[in-house]
Amino acid sequence: MLFFTQCFGAVLDLIHLRFQHYKAKRVFSAAGQLVCVVNPTHSLKYAPTRCAAAQASAEQGVLPPCHHHEAVHDPQLVPCTCPLFSCPWEGHLEVVVSHLRQTHRINILQGAEIVFLATDMHLPAPTDWIIMHSCLGHQFLLVLRKQEKYEGHPQFFATMMLIGTPTQANNFTYRLELNRNQRRLKWEATPRSILECVDSVISDGDCLVLNTSLAQLFSDNGSLAIGIAITTSKVHSSEAEM
Amino acid sequence: MLFFTQCFGAVLDLIHLRFQHYKAKRVFSAAGQLVCVVNPTHSLKYAPTRCAAAQASAEQGVLPPCHHHEAVHDPQLVPCTCPLFSCPWEGHLEVVVSHLRQTHRINILQGAEIVFLATDMHLPAPTDWIIMHSCLGHQFLLVLRKQEKYEGHPQFFATMMLIGTPTQANNFTYRLELNRNQRRLKWEATPRSILECVDSVISDGDCLVLNTSLAQLFSDNGSLAIGIAITTSKVHSSEAEM
Repeated sequence: MLFFTQCFGAVLDLIHLRFQHYKAKRVFSAAGQLVCVVNPTHSLKYAPTRCAAAQASAEQGVLPPCHHHEAVHDPQLVPCTCPLFSCPWEGHLEVVVSHLRQTHRINILQGAEIVFLATDMHLPAPTDWIIMHSCLGHQFLLVLRKQEKYEGHPQFFATMMLIGTPTQANNFTYRLELNRNQRRLKWEATPRSILECVDSVISDGDCLVLNTSLAQLFSDNGSLAIGIAITTSKVHSSEAEM
Repeated sequence: MLFFTQCFGAVLDLIHLRFQHYKAKRVFSAAGQLVCVVNPTHSLKYAPTRCAAAQASAEQGVLPPCHHHEAVHDPQLVPCTCPLFSCPWEGHLEVVVSHLRQTHRINILQGAEIVFLATDMHLPAPTDWIIMHSCLGHQFLLVLRKQEKYEGHPQFFATMMLIGTPTQANNFTYRLELNRNQRRLKWEATPRSILECVDSVISDGDCLVLNTSLAQLFSDNGSLAIGIAITTSKVHSSEAEM
């Protein structure tokens, strides 16, 4: 009996996923775009405790300020950069991706342009939606966070981090695009390195920021579809071009 | 002596304007784009007292809610739609533009694409930057407002209203674009009709919204350059295209 109940549950989940996939396809019908359904994770930590260690490993001087400082034993080692958990892991930059996949079960997707479909936008803050994105020979971490910067007024913050050094990050431009209800919002920027602190990027507001009302206008049945594209950064030389 | 002092002041003003113009040109170097320096106006009213009258004149049912209600004597007459002042004027839609120009000294600019250069972004909220934009045979009102929706946290809200009916407004799409410091933010939407209430559009957050930190990243020496383009709305049929 329990077996049948579980099977039924699994089938329902599949139907639900298929339905969400269909919804995203309807919004982003451009052929070949991969739609990835991303479920929320209620974030367990919000203090940027591991930033100091991350900063020590960063190549460039201009990094966002972090508030906690820890001793770094080996400058080659970086701490776990998962924005969800306070994780004691540290290791070389090259193995961050496999740590995030294996330990924190963060999915990884291939493709220059993908659609990130964040479900259950109504869940209370703090909540994170996270995936990794493999593209142009590098891996990127996309973080969508619902957070109350002003008490009682949750906002959504979306940013993309390169799992690499700041110098490598400067070679790319990422674009996040929302498109629904006769409205379109595009954010383009250079990704930050994961050695910088995702919490700082979000608290600085240097990312795509959505008020709840705007997030509702862009979402469909509680899901927010964000089109993501990554290019090598030739764009910035033509900063003047409109 | 007074004459010379005034002359000197006027020359200084001209140099200042020229300098700001040059700054905007540097950011938006696309040939032929008209740069308009817009000085702030400290807003004298913030209650949407005239919305009910405006709504009575609107053609369509889906209008933002307004909180005050006034008697409307002639449904052909619309109240003054200037977002700055509580003005007792009312008149036909066709003469709103001349009323805004003559009584409220709001500048009007020609051209499909212009650059709106809002100065003195540091001024405390509430502050408005307003111009009219004449394009495609219609006049539009661009409102940039600094307002504290959450106490102590001023935000910037930018929207474009058609000086016409909601049905006419549906034929257009406006685009606001910020582009500086290797970041680009674009907002595209159908303009609202001026018969709807600009205060409601802003309080609903259905417009381009900038936190102070993001506004600082996009501004140069206290001035924020917003590229504006208006097109006839074929865009929305291709809502899926990314």
